[in-house]
Amino acid sequence: MATRGAILAAAAEEFASGSYHEASLSRILERSKVTKGALYFHFVSKESIALAVVDEMEVLCRAMVERADGLGLDGLRTAAQIAREMQDALEGPVVRAGQRLCAEGFAGPQRPGWPFRFWEETFTGLFERAAVAEILLPSVDPSSLARTIVDMSGGAFAASLAITELTDLAQRVCENWELVLGAVAVPAWLAAWRADGGMRAVLGPHVVLGVADGRGWVPGV
Amino acid sequence: MATRGAILAAAAEEFASGSYHEASLSRILERSKVTKGALYFHFVSKESIALAVVDEMEVLCRAMVERADGLGLDGLRTAAQIAREMQDALEGPVVRAGQRLCAEGFAGPQRPGWPFRFWEETFTGLFERAAVAEILLPSVDPSSLARTIVDMSGGAFAASLAITELTDLAQRVCENWELVLGAVAVPAWLAAWRADGGMRAVLGPHVVLGVADGRGWVPGV
Repeated sequence: MATRGAILAAAAEEFASGSYHEASLSRILERSKVTKGALYFHFVSKESIALAVVDEMEVLCRAMVERADGLGLDGLRTAAQIAREMQDALEGPVVRAGQRLCAEGFAGPQRPGWPFRFWEETFTGLFERAAVAEILLPSVDPSSLARTIVDMSGGAFAASLAITELTDLAQRVCENWELVLGAVAVPAWLAAWRADGGMRAVLGPHVVLGVADGRGWVPGV
Repeated sequence: MATRGAILAAAAEEFASGSYHEASLSRILERSKVTKGALYFHFVSKESIALAVVDEMEVLCRAMVERADGLGLDGLRTAAQIAREMQDALEGPVVRAGQRLCAEGFAGPQRPGWPFRFWEETFTGLFERAAVAEILLPSVDPSSLARTIVDMSGGAFAASLAITELTDLAQRVCENWELVLGAVAVPAWLAAWRADGGMRAVLGPHVVLGVADGRGWVPGV
């Protein structure tokens, strides 16, 4: 298991720093410090390693949602919390690599449309909860809002990566969410949200996402 | 010139339907019905063809902006017009291929961050114009709004392509823009906009984007 984790951690670094086709098995071997034999014991090909990195991302995303759900916040604050944690996670190799691989079409045939569908379903559920709690304006359709959030979030990652190597991702995420929340939440919710400092005050756990130790979620400093 | 156009049209189809690495020079040759010698007279490599397709996209995008600017609409309506025309254009091979190539990092070293920077500058200019015309709420920062629009638009294309092969792109674009315009425009502008039918009533020229005939912009039926 330690060997498999070392390979996946090295692969995440490799796939996060360039395209799938640029990634090389020999650099993954070098980074992971395992032998070629050990690598081929765990994985049959570069593609199977890429799919395993996307698996890791899926596990991390599901854990992130479950954890945020457990905080007992309302639907809108839970959604904002997930967005900030995802922004944090995108700085780490696993999610960044997974996102890149999915964008390049390497999510695997058993996972079509991942991660778009997963996030659309997750946010639709949260916004339906917000509608029931009457903190969403009655004119807002939860699933339409979820699609807007998915578009905005995926685009923010792609644009920030292309223009600033993710330096401005936090700013983009905060600006995007403030605009959208301002348009969809009821005034009382917005007043309380702004009094609490808004999106910038929503801090993720500043997680360091690693796979090498098999823990997945490592609270950072 | 006709040969070059035929090669670019075929290349756009090829790059639009899969990743850069999946694209094959022999299929481009087959689609374009030109000889290998003619292809190598115009282009030295697959990469140089890809760069020429991105050039075509750049020309089309600049022409689209210039044309929309010439309609004499206010800043917000001009922005909405461009968004609908771009959505139309993404159904055509040149822009779809160009967008894919840029997302995969094949925009070329002389064009870093294209098309993100181009669209951010274009929309910032339009929203500054809207601010001067006092149709944008005074609390809205034009360049921040432009970044949100860029994120939302790039993400809508990626999500729609991944989940529905662009079938739901028009719906996503309309929903996204209605939400954002509702949040940033002054009430009088919004009332007039809604009376006119909103985003769904903004029709592009239903352009057929082709490079083969060298005209670029072909008004459709």
